[in-house]
Amino acid sequence: MAKAFSTRAENYSKWYNDIVQHAGLAENSAVRGCMVIKPYGYAIWEKMQAALDKMFKDTGHSNAYFPLFIPKSFFSREADHVEGFAKECAVVTHYRLKQDEKGGGIVVDEDAKLEEELVVRPTSETIIWDTYRQWVQSYRDLPILVNQWANVVRWEMRTRMFLRTAEFLWQEGHTAHATREEALEETYQMLDVYADFAENHMAIPVLKGIKSASERFAGAEETFCIEALMQDGKALQAGTSHFLGQNFAKAFDVKFASKTGKLEYVWATSWGVSTRLVGALIMAHSDDRGLVLPPKLAPIQTVIVPIYKNDEQYALVCEKAEAIKKELEKFGVQVKLDDRDTHKPGWKFSEYEFKGVPVRIAIGPRDVENGTVEVARRDTLEKEVVPLDNLGERVQGLLENIQKVLYQRALGFRESNTHKVDSWEEFRRLLDDKGGFLLAHWDGTPETEQKIKEETKATIRCIPLEKSEEQGKCVYSGNPSPGRVVFARAY
Amino acid sequence: MAKAFSTRAENYSKWYNDIVQHAGLAENSAVRGCMVIKPYGYAIWEKMQAALDKMFKDTGHSNAYFPLFIPKSFFSREADHVEGFAKECAVVTHYRLKQDEKGGGIVVDEDAKLEEELVVRPTSETIIWDTYRQWVQSYRDLPILVNQWANVVRWEMRTRMFLRTAEFLWQEGHTAHATREEALEETYQMLDVYADFAENHMAIPVLKGIKSASERFAGAEETFCIEALMQDGKALQAGTSHFLGQNFAKAFDVKFASKTGKLEYVWATSWGVSTRLVGALIMAHSDDRGLVLPPKLAPIQTVIVPIYKNDEQYALVCEKAEAIKKELEKFGVQVKLDDRDTHKPGWKFSEYEFKGVPVRIAIGPRDVENGTVEVARRDTLEKEVVPLDNLGERVQGLLENIQKVLYQRALGFRESNTHKVDSWEEFRRLLDDKGGFLLAHWDGTPETEQKIKEETKATIRCIPLEKSEEQGKCVYSGNPSPGRVVFARAY
Repeated sequence: MAKAFSTRAENYSKWYNDIVQHAGLAENSAVRGCMVIKPYGYAIWEKMQAALDKMFKDTGHSNAYFPLFIPKSFFSREADHVEGFAKECAVVTHYRLKQDEKGGGIVVDEDAKLEEELVVRPTSETIIWDTYRQWVQSYRDLPILVNQWANVVRWEMRTRMFLRTAEFLWQEGHTAHATREEALEETYQMLDVYADFAENHMAIPVLKGIKSASERFAGAEETFCIEALMQDGKALQAGTSHFLGQNFAKAFDVKFASKTGKLEYVWATSWGVSTRLVGALIMAHSDDRGLVLPPKLAPIQTVIVPIYKNDEQYALVCEKAEAIKKELEKFGVQVKLDDRDTHKPGWKFSEYEFKGVPVRIAIGPRDVENGTVEVARRDTLEKEVVPLDNLGERVQGLLENIQKVLYQRALGFRESNTHKVDSWEEFRRLLDDKGGFLLAHWDGTPETEQKIKEETKATIRCIPLEKSEEQGKCVYSGNPSPGRVVFARAY
Repeated sequence: MAKAFSTRAENYSKWYNDIVQHAGLAENSAVRGCMVIKPYGYAIWEKMQAALDKMFKDTGHSNAYFPLFIPKSFFSREADHVEGFAKECAVVTHYRLKQDEKGGGIVVDEDAKLEEELVVRPTSETIIWDTYRQWVQSYRDLPILVNQWANVVRWEMRTRMFLRTAEFLWQEGHTAHATREEALEETYQMLDVYADFAENHMAIPVLKGIKSASERFAGAEETFCIEALMQDGKALQAGTSHFLGQNFAKAFDVKFASKTGKLEYVWATSWGVSTRLVGALIMAHSDDRGLVLPPKLAPIQTVIVPIYKNDEQYALVCEKAEAIKKELEKFGVQVKLDDRDTHKPGWKFSEYEFKGVPVRIAIGPRDVENGTVEVARRDTLEKEVVPLDNLGERVQGLLENIQKVLYQRALGFRESNTHKVDSWEEFRRLLDDKGGFLLAHWDGTPETEQKIKEETKATIRCIPLEKSEEQGKCVYSGNPSPGRVVFARAY
């Protein structure tokens, strides 16, 4: 790279910020904690949205849209919920500005004070369950399988682009069911959808598990999650699926007449992933040369760069490049031909490498003569001169291979950074040395969990769904434990 | 219809609300002026989004995302802009709630008052132009062709679902250019994109024109619009494309070095359409039997309803119906097979008729025997028994025909409700009798425009782009006029 960017080893945090900024993904805005998602970053999010939206629809869900604002009183209806979100809410108190009569510019018009303040949604359970009350009378009205793509606001004090911002984009599914079993099934189903998306689209292996009580969503009976491991050994919660029991139905009085005519409270789930996934994607695969994107989520899957010395060569090479572009598009490959004559090929090579374009094709006058092109892959940085014949098929195969290689690489990294730990000393040493997932026994008490967090900053990421039953002793307290849980420092 | 809904003649406004509610499009929420867009209504919006998004991308635009919140001071930078929007802004003043110490429940935490209030975006010119300052140094950085899909808030006092709500969904394009000519060209191009979308997807003919100064976007040099005519003779502004000149570049100090090295202010456009279009769609085509949707925007293009008397017939008919569904899907038709045994065929017929599904296919045991189905079209209510052979092709052709018929019908309606008017008496009489577009001479002064509005509630919808030069006398003042403009009462 011509520009001097940080490496992971030097400064992981700065490396991350350099990629976000210089790959054109996002930037900080004039509003504290709010980011601008730039076109290239937004294009990644659009690809995520498209894939997820299809998975939601394939599992029977429809999209809808609920108000941005939530009356303050709604919040208080579910005790845990308000406790969890009240401290970080943006609150609308007035509905008008005016010219200051004393010449102080534009000021809030005190005559336009709202009778009841409105909270900018940090999540929509309350406003949605207030709506569902109207939608549900009988068991015939169930299930309700609705998803919403929306922006939400949580007034976080310490923010980082994509990973934690005051405003972020997400989807939130909110479903209503006649039985506990059906709601639980939905909770698991959506957890599986998220894991499928993470592994097969993002190329990131994830652990599926249950959150401990202290990490549970405010208002949930049980929170399920997928947890991914980043290259610095820290965990990242990539998606959550909540079993809400009848908590919100009770808070908003949502009942239905069952087949036997009995009035019962409705069972609920909610589940969401957010633009945070873009942060996970960056941190899971990228290297010291910039962003690395899995082909399925790359806005540009293949870039073609013409090499030429004069106008005649330019015309010759670009004509061939256009033909190659069309050929690749026939194979469903998203191609960009960068035929700008304002930038040199070397500059373009660096640019697309830094932007993580999976495959680069370079073509010069000699290639045209020989019927070849140079194909370079971003994941391994390998280059190869190949014949033009069957190039579409070849590139398609290459993209599939890159998708697999990235997943395997991330899986290998996670495996070599997951450790069974049985002593407190080893627990601390491993955490400080290299981080990673630590599988350790825990006595099941919030007190121990809290102490471990205070002493090491590690939290219980999840109680894994796939676990071998194994009696043991808590790594911290020495008290009996029914099985290992996953500890890590986390984003 | 079994249920008794209002007809257009009885009560147009109630007819509209009945359709919105009973076709499951939207409902009012607990938050004043904010609606819940229900799954069926949102599915129409999704189809609009998909078509528009493709048109934006085909014309070179990318999506991005800018913050929901705008610092109050940004607003004041462009004088007309703040004047236009300050009176209807939702203002965030605090970032935390807390438990009232006196036991009054959850209250705003006065210790968490923002230093500078944040306005919930009513439109994003200011925050976007503050961002563009960082993006533009030289002419090489131009043009910027960005669009945003977002929610915006305008604290309207009188709201109606889809047509005018406090929060609504929209897209806002914001482009930056090196020259006045290029920006103007973009403004026209996007107006054409909107007209194309209205006519070829929504099946609604529109007039393209320029707004008078008093109807101009706050901060624009010129506002272009497309205007549609609803069945009650009122006009509806369906989209606007603004030429912003250098107003926002000057307000936010966005300059670029031209090819000659001179520092110049950047030229701007902005353009948008919103969920209001769903309201236009409802009002343009629907009839006293409910919603009528043009096939291109119908979430369900064809519904199949099985007719049967017993389980044996049910199995027989549904098997055939499944095969028909697959056949139609091969032709790209979006089909729903409603094989629920909890609802009778008659109920289903009414339901899908009211929901505006363009084509209904009914199939019973005798049809299976004869190799036929009954095909009904929503626009003309015609029914026909047709052979199964080539059904896919037939339905595809039928959908195309319905799309055309709806457009032609709307065009016919507009033509018979557009009148050249040369006397003030006729102007008033026509407005009161049947509304419609009145082509009348206007002396060009805001005073006359204002008086006409006060006396008749009619406004100048636009100065049409396609007009014959024609000298005349103002219909109100009798003063000289350079050409006719379009008057109407409007939503």
